[in-house]
Amino acid sequence: MTSSIYDHQLDQRAANYQALSPITFIERAAAVYPERTAVVSGEIRRTWAETYRRCRQLASALQLLGIDKNDTVSVLCPNTPEHFEAHFAVPMAGAVLNSINTRLDAPSIAFILGHSEAKVLIVDNELSAVAAAALEKLDKPPRVISVNSPEAPECQIAETQDYEAFLSSGDAQFTAVQPDSEWDAISLNYTSGTTGDPKGVVYHHRGAYLNATSNAVSWSMPDASVYLWTLPMFHCNGWCFPWTMALVAGTSVCLRQVRADEIVERIVSEKVDHFCGAPIVLSMVADNPGIAAIDHKVKVMTAGAPPPAAVIQRMEAANFDVTHVYGLTETYGPCVVSSWNPDWDTKSEDEKARLKARQGVRVPMQEALMVANPDTLEPVRRDGETLGEVFMRGNIVMKGYLKNPATTEASFNGDWFHSGDLAVWHSDGYIEIKDRSKDIIISGGENISSIEIEDALYRHPAVQDVAIVAAPDEKWGETPCAFITLKPGQTASEDDLRQHCRDNLAHFKVPRQFVFRELPRTSTGKVQKFVLREWVKEGAGE
Amino acid sequence: MTSSIYDHQLDQRAANYQALSPITFIERAAAVYPERTAVVSGEIRRTWAETYRRCRQLASALQLLGIDKNDTVSVLCPNTPEHFEAHFAVPMAGAVLNSINTRLDAPSIAFILGHSEAKVLIVDNELSAVAAAALEKLDKPPRVISVNSPEAPECQIAETQDYEAFLSSGDAQFTAVQPDSEWDAISLNYTSGTTGDPKGVVYHHRGAYLNATSNAVSWSMPDASVYLWTLPMFHCNGWCFPWTMALVAGTSVCLRQVRADEIVERIVSEKVDHFCGAPIVLSMVADNPGIAAIDHKVKVMTAGAPPPAAVIQRMEAANFDVTHVYGLTETYGPCVVSSWNPDWDTKSEDEKARLKARQGVRVPMQEALMVANPDTLEPVRRDGETLGEVFMRGNIVMKGYLKNPATTEASFNGDWFHSGDLAVWHSDGYIEIKDRSKDIIISGGENISSIEIEDALYRHPAVQDVAIVAAPDEKWGETPCAFITLKPGQTASEDDLRQHCRDNLAHFKVPRQFVFRELPRTSTGKVQKFVLREWVKEGAGE
Repeated sequence: MTSSIYDHQLDQRAANYQALSPITFIERAAAVYPERTAVVSGEIRRTWAETYRRCRQLASALQLLGIDKNDTVSVLCPNTPEHFEAHFAVPMAGAVLNSINTRLDAPSIAFILGHSEAKVLIVDNELSAVAAAALEKLDKPPRVISVNSPEAPECQIAETQDYEAFLSSGDAQFTAVQPDSEWDAISLNYTSGTTGDPKGVVYHHRGAYLNATSNAVSWSMPDASVYLWTLPMFHCNGWCFPWTMALVAGTSVCLRQVRADEIVERIVSEKVDHFCGAPIVLSMVADNPGIAAIDHKVKVMTAGAPPPAAVIQRMEAANFDVTHVYGLTETYGPCVVSSWNPDWDTKSEDEKARLKARQGVRVPMQEALMVANPDTLEPVRRDGETLGEVFMRGNIVMKGYLKNPATTEASFNGDWFHSGDLAVWHSDGYIEIKDRSKDIIISGGENISSIEIEDALYRHPAVQDVAIVAAPDEKWGETPCAFITLKPGQTASEDDLRQHCRDNLAHFKVPRQFVFRELPRTSTGKVQKFVLREWVKEGAGE
Repeated sequence: MTSSIYDHQLDQRAANYQALSPITFIERAAAVYPERTAVVSGEIRRTWAETYRRCRQLASALQLLGIDKNDTVSVLCPNTPEHFEAHFAVPMAGAVLNSINTRLDAPSIAFILGHSEAKVLIVDNELSAVAAAALEKLDKPPRVISVNSPEAPECQIAETQDYEAFLSSGDAQFTAVQPDSEWDAISLNYTSGTTGDPKGVVYHHRGAYLNATSNAVSWSMPDASVYLWTLPMFHCNGWCFPWTMALVAGTSVCLRQVRADEIVERIVSEKVDHFCGAPIVLSMVADNPGIAAIDHKVKVMTAGAPPPAAVIQRMEAANFDVTHVYGLTETYGPCVVSSWNPDWDTKSEDEKARLKARQGVRVPMQEALMVANPDTLEPVRRDGETLGEVFMRGNIVMKGYLKNPATTEASFNGDWFHSGDLAVWHSDGYIEIKDRSKDIIISGGENISSIEIEDALYRHPAVQDVAIVAAPDEKWGETPCAFITLKPGQTASEDDLRQHCRDNLAHFKVPRQFVFRELPRTSTGKVQKFVLREWVKEGAGE
């Protein structure tokens, strides 16, 4: 019990306290910039007033259908205006948005719909076949609303309502359901987990508001920015950028497919000034001759792997400003940014690329980040060499895993979120990821970073793609095994690559085996190392 | 009791919840950009690492002195590095910062020190004479720490410690006291109230964090912005810009005095890109021939009165980009911004100035704004004509008035904050202030806006300064009385001005009396209309 003068009769009330929620951003965008373009997609151009009206109608229609507070509404759509609308309309109805990875198979989708207890599924007709197969597996399937785009084949689901008809049934004057608390759930994102059942990561209104804001601040996004959707909206709610775009009252340019020609064409025609994408998307864009026509500055965020130096150099020559970021589904997407220090401007191109490849420092609204011993939680020395696990703490860490208290507890053990990623900490405070905990190779008692070997092999001129996993070894415990894809028209023998590794790595780090083949990737572009490990077990490298 | 899956075993914990506080901004600035310049003042240049170290030392020294949670630490300083440091160090000690208006007289300062129960006063030697006089009036005077700048006369206070010596006694490794709740008080700002005792407006950590962020978002402030301090830090904590500068890890350029030559010199030498100031400061800058040397873009926020069109035009010709904002001490400073719509770029210069003179729309982080009937709280029609009171609601509305529950309740009546300002609401959602409630003139049952008459008189080429107040009138109840200052070397008779008003206003709005003289102003540049009303009572206009 405090007796402070500062706590006496100075309580929270409706006039001075409101739960933080990104819903307030769309209300403002529509009120202040009603005529400004909110969404562009193919022939569709909608203003913020129209988009907000449609969101209110959709929220109202969901409520009329019986959707209640904390009900789950799943969405299986490409980066379309409808998917964008769901980011506002679903929470406006008091419900929780579950955007499903569009590259999943029917059993995975069925698992997610079942585990999340989805009451409604909004599905694009492009994905209706896989959705139909998933729905067949469920005892209590959700109600289905289908987005019937003329660009996609006819809907394959029997019992469904048309999205536009459904939306029209709602009240355009609907008043958004306010969260009871800013800790209320706003969305549910399943991790693409390389093994086992996916885990459902719960976001809350407060975190969505703060991460959307953190995006705008750390990128200094101007009012009325034009953002191109190459990053999937199902991926950490598009790193919360639907909400960021409402905050800056900017324009979202939607793309059904991620194709270099279309990306470049849209950047030119819509004067896109910001987009996010995996390094593979950047490579595609850098290779496209159309980029010569881009005569304005485009800011790009990339994550998943450090962007190769050559790609950065080609993109920067073409007016792109590339920022490397790092995060996890559990941190609402990027919570670490490789913030550029102008003192580095005079460094060599190679040194610049090396600096830019580091994951970086915490974003403004993540309160703490450290690299530490996973057992003791003691921070490692900032020597750029000592390996530790990356830990985060703060307001843009998830609420927890849905219906999975044991994993939630484990991941928050010691009052820090355990990322499972291994990194070193540099003297200037920047962290550099070396591996996933489970991807480290332990050979003769030495830790070997699979990323270090991959980096060395990427520098060989004939190598297009590479992944290193541990192969069991009677003598050493584990040894590195390399999976390699060569560039079209290029050749390199196993001996060539072995010699290249010997020239660039400590000898105990040189892979014992080299396997030449296409690499299996997840829907978000990550190499599926568990598949490679299976192949190793089956004798791939022998 | 809820049974939702989204509330089950998904509680707040240290890993995923931290009280919002701008203290986290300086921690990050120092960790990520230790070598970047944080503060410039005269010969002093300090990095973020140095500034943070000094703040930790000051916080530690305050704690060692006995300063505890929720104790008040008052500061009476110009815009100096020490005043900037207090914005972080005082809350880092768990205490509440009370920045006192440097233009107040000793009785007012004594009232504030007594009412706020200040335990410590940090005073610049420039202000030690008035501080000494204030301290003499107190039974329990606070401990005094004096900032001994070589630029100011010697300290006039007997019992005092030197700021630098005091700071040196603190621990540079001090760990900031975390707020127990983000609702904890961070600062206390007394309104400059034109009558009666000043009211103590209490800010909390959450609001300071959000308004500091709102500044960065609504101004799209880049990382490493350079901000010039012309707006006093005692004024709503410099509109929360000390904290904004830590968020963007930028540079604060301090100025002891607001002089046009020094402002312009600093803009050029430090490449200042942002500053805030009253319209009078803008006029001074616009008139300074040195602005011809400014070859980079400078963004300016101004408030207090709409900036005159001629000033805006001269400044924009000299690379300044002027944004008009509006707010009150109770809303952490500006919470309404005259956001520019690019559709207006093609309008005439006069039309542009008219649009820019409107106060505008809510900033991103103020949740609601309306113009409404003060009795019924019914919003007025958006016709640009119907007068109503301005009301705000949201997270950047104060915690309340210190030790003044009756006024707190009254100002929050009906779950909205009552601004006391009268405005119209335009069809595009922009509000335009017409008067303070108490400045409106009611003549023959008609409301007359004093601002409308002032605007008309400002357009007369000989008029430099004007203020309109009500004069009692037996027949009409009230009539407008004009106080006028002419430009040096210019002449205009009462008849000239009367004719000018008749040409530009409805006849019942034309002032009955014209008084030529200098206008009395408050420390923040506002005309003291209560003084003019006294003069009218004493027969000034007769």
